[in-house]
Amino acid sequence: MILTTQDVKDMAVGAAILGSGGGGDPYIGMLMAIQAIERGKKVELVEPDVVDDNDFVVPVAMMGTPTVLIEKIPGGDEVLWVLRSIEKYYGREANYITPIEAGGVNSMIPIVAAAYTGKPLLNGDGMGRAFPELQMVTFHLIGVKATPMVLSDERGNTVILDTIDNFWAEKIARAITIKFGGSAYIAIYAMMGRDYRRGVVKRTPLLALELGKTIREAKRRGVNVFDAILDITKGFTLFKGKIVDVARFNIGGFARGEVTIEGFDEFKNSRMIVKFQNENLVAIKDGEVVATTPDIISILDIESAKPITTERLRYGLRVVVIGIPCDEKWRTEEGLKVVGPKYFGYDVDYIPIEVRMKRM
Amino acid sequence: MILTTQDVKDMAVGAAILGSGGGGDPYIGMLMAIQAIERGKKVELVEPDVVDDNDFVVPVAMMGTPTVLIEKIPGGDEVLWVLRSIEKYYGREANYITPIEAGGVNSMIPIVAAAYTGKPLLNGDGMGRAFPELQMVTFHLIGVKATPMVLSDERGNTVILDTIDNFWAEKIARAITIKFGGSAYIAIYAMMGRDYRRGVVKRTPLLALELGKTIREAKRRGVNVFDAILDITKGFTLFKGKIVDVARFNIGGFARGEVTIEGFDEFKNSRMIVKFQNENLVAIKDGEVVATTPDIISILDIESAKPITTERLRYGLRVVVIGIPCDEKWRTEEGLKVVGPKYFGYDVDYIPIEVRMKRM
Repeated sequence: MILTTQDVKDMAVGAAILGSGGGGDPYIGMLMAIQAIERGKKVELVEPDVVDDNDFVVPVAMMGTPTVLIEKIPGGDEVLWVLRSIEKYYGREANYITPIEAGGVNSMIPIVAAAYTGKPLLNGDGMGRAFPELQMVTFHLIGVKATPMVLSDERGNTVILDTIDNFWAEKIARAITIKFGGSAYIAIYAMMGRDYRRGVVKRTPLLALELGKTIREAKRRGVNVFDAILDITKGFTLFKGKIVDVARFNIGGFARGEVTIEGFDEFKNSRMIVKFQNENLVAIKDGEVVATTPDIISILDIESAKPITTERLRYGLRVVVIGIPCDEKWRTEEGLKVVGPKYFGYDVDYIPIEVRMKRM
Repeated sequence: MILTTQDVKDMAVGAAILGSGGGGDPYIGMLMAIQAIERGKKVELVEPDVVDDNDFVVPVAMMGTPTVLIEKIPGGDEVLWVLRSIEKYYGREANYITPIEAGGVNSMIPIVAAAYTGKPLLNGDGMGRAFPELQMVTFHLIGVKATPMVLSDERGNTVILDTIDNFWAEKIARAITIKFGGSAYIAIYAMMGRDYRRGVVKRTPLLALELGKTIREAKRRGVNVFDAILDITKGFTLFKGKIVDVARFNIGGFARGEVTIEGFDEFKNSRMIVKFQNENLVAIKDGEVVATTPDIISILDIESAKPITTERLRYGLRVVVIGIPCDEKWRTEEGLKVVGPKYFGYDVDYIPIEVRMKRM
């Protein structure tokens, strides 16, 4: 399918929900993507199955702290620049562009790259949601190297990393991103088609698009938007209430904190705390854990159903908290080592959200 | 000339004096260089004049905090690796290896590269001494770019930087070096022969060699070593005394501090404070500035005449402080902007050391 500007707008809404509160606000990325498409550029969304073993697949993205991202207006040149740089370093042209992250701004950045190069955009990603660190990618789980990777800033500074493992890539790239002022354009996990097909989380761009479209249409028809969201995502309502406190602090380039929500309606006299580190990671209702990473926890405005990223959480907002099952790839022992609650420092066992919900 | 192991030993002693207290202890680099030569490798020292306009000249070095350097034993492989990486990135082989820094460990690292590759080593450098930041290089003054540069650690992590200016190179490379654990091998200021000839500080490796040789012979013959040093370097005795205090602190990868020396002999009842940031930068005698960067300030053991790097300064050492005029390239308005006392945060005008000495 060829993406229309309406598709991009819908996808941005859906991607923000899949972002689990993080991944950066897709708004600016959406403007960039729409501009590219309106300049007459066509973006074709194709299925991962069409990728050949020896095709060269390049993910492009932004890296950095969302709180910094939203104060910067990026152009499209930087996205092309990191793509061209990694192509030059590998000595071969990309056959396909892919998102590495389904949630947030990184759902949009690959559209910009696809639009300006005419290369097909793959209908999949490496997370099925948003995560804060470079090794938190399904391709990492099957042994694909994040490097050689390219980082660039809007000034024109460019760095090529080739590290011994993906944790070193995260460590070095993070330090560079901070020096760049908080965000960087990156081309990362450039890989062969056979690896892509094996590691990809399929259909996430289209899922985001359908999610956005359904919300838009449900609103127009006056249907309950939340039911539509839960239906498409196989998600659950975790809580409804008013935000009464937001505590936050920025450490080492990550926005961390927690939000406290006082319940109403069927959640009256209850209280939920959601802990976040860029993304929402653990939801606790009246002292009991009800959802954890890698399942998606999203906080939506109760009127508009618009997802509220962690950096926009504030006192007084009336919200619905929803939980969405993550991709099965994350639910393995290996997957949970990389993105489970214990990795983030929470002493909680991962239990799939649908199991937790059934128990309650 | 072909360097012998004795030449390398002498050069290491002289380089430590030219290091102005910094540049890292040459000892480990010396061991690496001697090992390479003893394996039958020949290192030919050639004059900058022989370099053709279109020759490709590559400086290799170590970057990092001396206090970390001396706890690590580097191998020769990393030096070759950064050289090979930059050659690959440029798509051409180096014709010559050069030191970028005449003082400290970086007088030795290029010998290792020259030995294992058989490429001639140039008799010159980009400082005529040691300095702590990447833009503090004479080639910077004539507009040569520090990047594309390669950084690598002993684990095998490799980074290629291409920044918009040399200050950005310093900023990003410093952050990476800290993440590497405090030191990195680098290939930097790779340049064309015509730029090299225009920007080079000539004869510094040979000066270091002669300095070391003269000290060795003066000792053997029982001649006054300090007179010999001052004679070769056109330097001055700034002070003699006992170290009574050393204050130091490590900020952002730089070793900073100051040493207080109580005078004896002709300096009895006097006191000298030398302020350092990796290198000795300002010498103050009884409240009066007697020497500043970019002139070289070296603190030597009064018995052995061995230079004491800033990280080895300690209470009780009996020392002679000497001052050596820097290269004329640093004494221009542009040069002083980059390495003058004000850049380092000292509110002192630069006055050439020989002028200060004449006034006193």
